[in-house]
Amino acid sequence: MNDCIFCKIVKGDVLCDKIYENDKIIAFLDIAPVNLGHTLVIPKLHFKDLFEIPEDVLFDLIIKTKKIAKSVMTAVNAEGINLGMNNKSAAGQAVFHAHMHIIPRFSQDGLKHWPNKKVNKADLEKTRDLIVKYLKYE
Amino acid sequence: MNDCIFCKIVKGDVLCDKIYENDKIIAFLDIAPVNLGHTLVIPKLHFKDLFEIPEDVLFDLIIKTKKIAKSVMTAVNAEGINLGMNNKSAAGQAVFHAHMHIIPRFSQDGLKHWPNKKVNKADLEKTRDLIVKYLKYE
Repeated sequence: MNDCIFCKIVKGDVLCDKIYENDKIIAFLDIAPVNLGHTLVIPKLHFKDLFEIPEDVLFDLIIKTKKIAKSVMTAVNAEGINLGMNNKSAAGQAVFHAHMHIIPRFSQDGLKHWPNKKVNKADLEKTRDLIVKYLKYE
Repeated sequence: MNDCIFCKIVKGDVLCDKIYENDKIIAFLDIAPVNLGHTLVIPKLHFKDLFEIPEDVLFDLIIKTKKIAKSVMTAVNAEGINLGMNNKSAAGQAVFHAHMHIIPRFSQDGLKHWPNKKVNKADLEKTRDLIVKYLKYE
């Protein structure tokens, strides 16, 4: 897509600190990292989010994400790694070209995880039944 | 593993609100969700984290995660979905049996994303070179 910053990176029209590239995906450093070493792995074709990525590309993306995550961890001496993919703006997606975040973590980096809610058994069961119902159509 | 809560769920010794199961993976509702509908997708075998999951299982896990995420979104009328996998305690991993979080999101749910750092070009380039170097051994 013409106005997509990640498509421009794929085409080479915008420079990046490239980590890896094959025919289906490309990985590069996030220029505004949560921690140094924060890497994005993206499909080369413009898929908006997870739901648009075809299975063969998704396979390549996750396999390479695993290898790159290991290398990020070693390179920056991280103690842990978060994978994250934000799909749609309500989930914090800012660039609408699907991307997997690889975020190196340190026990003293001060980043907080989201709080958990208390829910009752009836709500869980009702939600489970609905998800199972819709999953039949996927 | 005997003392692993997720292994007990796989064996049926601990009950769960099951969403999906095949020979390699199982998905169930998180009992303490970030938002109602929060689902975990896990390998049936005990792999500690991303780095231990073999490729065939990882493939199944991500393909089913995509389908389940779509169903979660529809079931709870979510506006977005976060995927997340926390690897090692510094990254917020609490159960040391690898699991993918599927978190439904709403534009008004008040959850904050982590801040970005400003980093200089030299640090990015040095980090890139190190990651690329270690990636050759993966």
